[in-house]
Amino acid sequence: MAAPEEIEPYTARLLIDCADQPGIVAAVSGFLFEQGANIVSSHQYSSDPIGGRFYLRTEFFLEGLAEDREGFRRDFDAVVAQRFAMEWEIRYWGERQRVAILVSRYDHCLMDLLWRWRRRELDADIVGVISNHPDLAEEAVAVSVPFHHVPVAKSAKGHAEERMLELLCGNVDLVVLARYMQILSGEFLDRLGAPVINIHHSFLPAFAGANPYRRAREHGVKLIGATAHYVTAELDGGPIIEQDVARVDHRQSVSELERIGRDIERLVLSRAVSLHLEDRVIADGGRTIVF
Amino acid sequence: MAAPEEIEPYTARLLIDCADQPGIVAAVSGFLFEQGANIVSSHQYSSDPIGGRFYLRTEFFLEGLAEDREGFRRDFDAVVAQRFAMEWEIRYWGERQRVAILVSRYDHCLMDLLWRWRRRELDADIVGVISNHPDLAEEAVAVSVPFHHVPVAKSAKGHAEERMLELLCGNVDLVVLARYMQILSGEFLDRLGAPVINIHHSFLPAFAGANPYRRAREHGVKLIGATAHYVTAELDGGPIIEQDVARVDHRQSVSELERIGRDIERLVLSRAVSLHLEDRVIADGGRTIVF
Amino acid sequence: MAAPEEIEPYTARLLIDCADQPGIVAAVSGFLFEQGANIVSSHQYSSDPIGGRFYLRTEFFLEGLAEDREGFRRDFDAVVAQRFAMEWEIRYWGERQRVAILVSRYDHCLMDLLWRWRRRELDADIVGVISNHPDLAEEAVAVSVPFHHVPVAKSAKGHAEERMLELLCGNVDLVVLARYMQILSGEFLDRLGAPVINIHHSFLPAFAGANPYRRAREHGVKLIGATAHYVTAELDGGPIIEQDVARVDHRQSVSELERIGRDIERLVLSRAVSLHLEDRVIADGGRTIVF
Amino acid sequence: MAAPEEIEPYTARLLIDCADQPGIVAAVSGFLFEQGANIVSSHQYSSDPIGGRFYLRTEFFLEGLAEDREGFRRDFDAVVAQRFAMEWEIRYWGERQRVAILVSRYDHCLMDLLWRWRRRELDADIVGVISNHPDLAEEAVAVSVPFHHVPVAKSAKGHAEERMLELLCGNVDLVVLARYMQILSGEFLDRLGAPVINIHHSFLPAFAGANPYRRAREHGVKLIGATAHYVTAELDGGPIIEQDVARVDHRQSVSELERIGRDIERLVLSRAVSLHLEDRVIADGGRTIVF
Repeated sequence: MAAPEEIEPYTARLLIDCADQPGIVAAVSGFLFEQGANIVSSHQYSSDPIGGRFYLRTEFFLEGLAEDREGFRRDFDAVVAQRFAMEWEIRYWGERQRVAILVSRYDHCLMDLLWRWRRRELDADIVGVISNHPDLAEEAVAVSVPFHHVPVAKSAKGHAEERMLELLCGNVDLVVLARYMQILSGEFLDRLGAPVINIHHSFLPAFAGANPYRRAREHGVKLIGATAHYVTAELDGGPIIEQDVARVDHRQSVSELERIGRDIERLVLSRAVSLHLEDRVIADGGRTIVF
Repeated sequence: MAAPEEIEPYTARLLIDCADQPGIVAAVSGFLFEQGANIVSSHQYSSDPIGGRFYLRTEFFLEGLAEDREGFRRDFDAVVAQRFAMEWEIRYWGERQRVAILVSRYDHCLMDLLWRWRRRELDADIVGVISNHPDLAEEAVAVSVPFHHVPVAKSAKGHAEERMLELLCGNVDLVVLARYMQILSGEFLDRLGAPVINIHHSFLPAFAGANPYRRAREHGVKLIGATAHYVTAELDGGPIIEQDVARVDHRQSVSELERIGRDIERLVLSRAVSLHLEDRVIADGGRTIVF
Repeated sequence: MAAPEEIEPYTARLLIDCADQPGIVAAVSGFLFEQGANIVSSHQYSSDPIGGRFYLRTEFFLEGLAEDREGFRRDFDAVVAQRFAMEWEIRYWGERQRVAILVSRYDHCLMDLLWRWRRRELDADIVGVISNHPDLAEEAVAVSVPFHHVPVAKSAKGHAEERMLELLCGNVDLVVLARYMQILSGEFLDRLGAPVINIHHSFLPAFAGANPYRRAREHGVKLIGATAHYVTAELDGGPIIEQDVARVDHRQSVSELERIGRDIERLVLSRAVSLHLEDRVIADGGRTIVF
Repeated sequence: MAAPEEIEPYTARLLIDCADQPGIVAAVSGFLFEQGANIVSSHQYSSDPIGGRFYLRTEFFLEGLAEDREGFRRDFDAVVAQRFAMEWEIRYWGERQRVAILVSRYDHCLMDLLWRWRRRELDADIVGVISNHPDLAEEAVAVSVPFHHVPVAKSAKGHAEERMLELLCGNVDLVVLARYMQILSGEFLDRLGAPVINIHHSFLPAFAGANPYRRAREHGVKLIGATAHYVTAELDGGPIIEQDVARVDHRQSVSELERIGRDIERLVLSRAVSLHLEDRVIADGGRTIVF
């Protein structure tokens, strides 16, 4: 959370991803040291030191960097990145990512995200809300976020996706499915070109489909929860970002289980979105590294 | 837990199960009052007041009852139970249930049960340990519990079940599968005539089969856990008694996840067995009521 | 939660509190049976069957009761309540309690309560918001709840309490302190004549006073949480209604701990308020029974 | 956990602690790279990049290192450590720390540690158990661990501490207080010269002294837990290593709360001891960094 009066906590954040091999950290830290950088925090992970993948996230102070971003990029690329065939990215403090929220009729996840965004807990710009229903227009408009109603006709899902791609492509860095009850096609995800985060109840693959809480209750589950994950073409099977649960017992009715489920869903989704915006989540094959 | 110096906390525990209808509680409590009983605790649950099932668990003091158990049984049956077509049971304080433990090679659940039993946390008699492997014989023998090695040949599972039924039938009130890695047949369960409690990791139906923790790790799960349930002919689908989870992250290796899993498994299984022995668990169709 | 289309789940809820003695349940259930009532749910608790206190909460259907509330009250009093010297209360389904919220500058608890109230998760009427600061007026007004700014001058706290008593006395069934940062006097609580629920961080009595999260972080705590309790003259020492925690580690800054703390505070306070409104919370001396 | 058949997961572990300043990571990683090391995992933390303290824990493979430990030590000291005035340590894979356990009469923490040690979950040598009571001698002897009965006379606590120092000084790397109910003097801690880990219930500073669970129950707490910490001269105030809690309600008796408390205590203490033995815990002033 970046409160307005807060002192700049770092100048830039460097994100690196490459095949693991000896010398990476020595090269990166040596380069930063020679530039005069002061490292604030650094997390690294190797999926396997022999033949695995190496991930680094480091935040540093460096006076004057803001004035010569292009020079830093060129030098780092020439001196370090090319040598290790790195995929890398640099994000400067204060650069805000653009986020779109897709929602259907349940409002709890949307409300929680909007509330955190208004109080600056979410370090991002919410550029729009898209829904296949008109119900939640007022919630978005009340906080001056554009609302787009894009109905989804059963016979013409492609039209809706086309319309959403017009709104989103090139305009967003992240799409959040805040209980958006339509399945997005693989083609949509490919053309969107931005990560998508989804939230669902945590019983999956059990109780897929309608009325999950009713069926979970019939099986006497003692824990209910939620899972936030990146969306891939494989429905509900993308890399998990965050999960949580709460205890329940036989006394809770289905509607009480749903209420408890909503509380977990909005917390888990908001935590996942925050972690993503802080570049703490790295997809490593089918799983995530959360620094 | 009944420590030896403890004062008798109640005289008897009454367990009732019948079709819900008006007047049940009035009849039961009226009867107990007329007998001179003093109710210590009482829990009731109706799956649905109209057409549902009613469950009652009540503990009471009643001086002189120990000396006229047969009279109480006869009177309660005549005055109350027949009128409401009740299934009912009475358990006197100090009556200990007989428990057999089935185990394969993993020792953590067995050790935890034996340790609690030795320190009188488990209010039961452990009458024997049966295993398809000889490895854990010493653990049972060291605390004076009979150990039976009943190997299971792939081609002749029936023989092993037959041998176990000889050991168990009529001698046990509860069988606990403390990581017993063989599937029990529906016929075995029928002929056994006693409830069976099992423990497994909590991802099911995800990651069924071998190496669940390895596969869970590959999907980046953030929570691992365990589920204790009654065994029915439907594999791993019986009514859930207890569940719990722990948070994990990408840093844990598969063997560390397994270690954490073991800690949860033994806690959850021990809690489920305790709840059962205290008659707190009632199977209501596919789910449980846990008073 | 009573959604508008929901079928009436019970006719009335009976709450009883008296010295424990044999025959209470028999008398109450016998009376209800004779009236033709059908019990939906019933919870009872005795702090000690010998010399303790007995508590009962029961919900039942009874056709025609709504038309003869006075008759039922008179009969129950004559036949049952006087005999056992009961304190008792009956609440009819659909009767909504009146709630006032006191708040200072932190908005998270207020926002959560208002949001749940708007979506009918809180079965109550929010009759007003009172604050010693003007900051949150807009939040209340936006959802048509009256907002009262009652500043508290250091030298004249009594004036503020006097003004609040004028607003509250006789108009509320419950007062919720949603991060209200002023200490209420014992006299205020006495004259108010309604229960008051407060929320605070869960380290107390550790880290009392300013900057609790900073000091907790300096002690390396691994769990932070929140406690909701009834307010008594003994500051922060009243009966606990609900508590929860979340895991943290050394990587979280003070502001991140505060953010996590806010999430727990609003969930715990909302759960406590819901439990109270459903008459599930009974104060038994310094502690609570939560049915 | 180092199972016997496991492949060596790293050659050595390097632990560094110094004033934060630019260039540390570049120097360390450059040195390791030039030696031909392959870094397996690395965690670092700076309490404050300006004027704070820097901590590093890194595990690496390095062929031939085992044969020239002295050379590595000399070179690292000359090239890196002196330049940054580092406190540093190297621990080779397979070097086991020596642990002594102090215990009084409660056996749950002792049993859990011994059980994990027997199944190689605790990567250490348990060199002895010391108790002020003779009760648990058999538990230690049964698993071939020396047991020392060192009674503590009220009038002559110094004698007991003197005797324990004879047994411990120079022979242990870690002392674990597994529910040892005597207070150790500051002088004892100084002369011992090894870290000491303690476990206590988590209400502190609330409910200090006798019968904490009884008093917690009287205040209606909804969570009970345990805290493991390093022992300092300030009683129960040392840096926290690990904490956990479990939910409870009014139905649990004091003895049930104690049972639940025991389960949490042994889990939390075992986790804290494991974290310490893996060099994952660093004391930073009054708090800990847990990598």
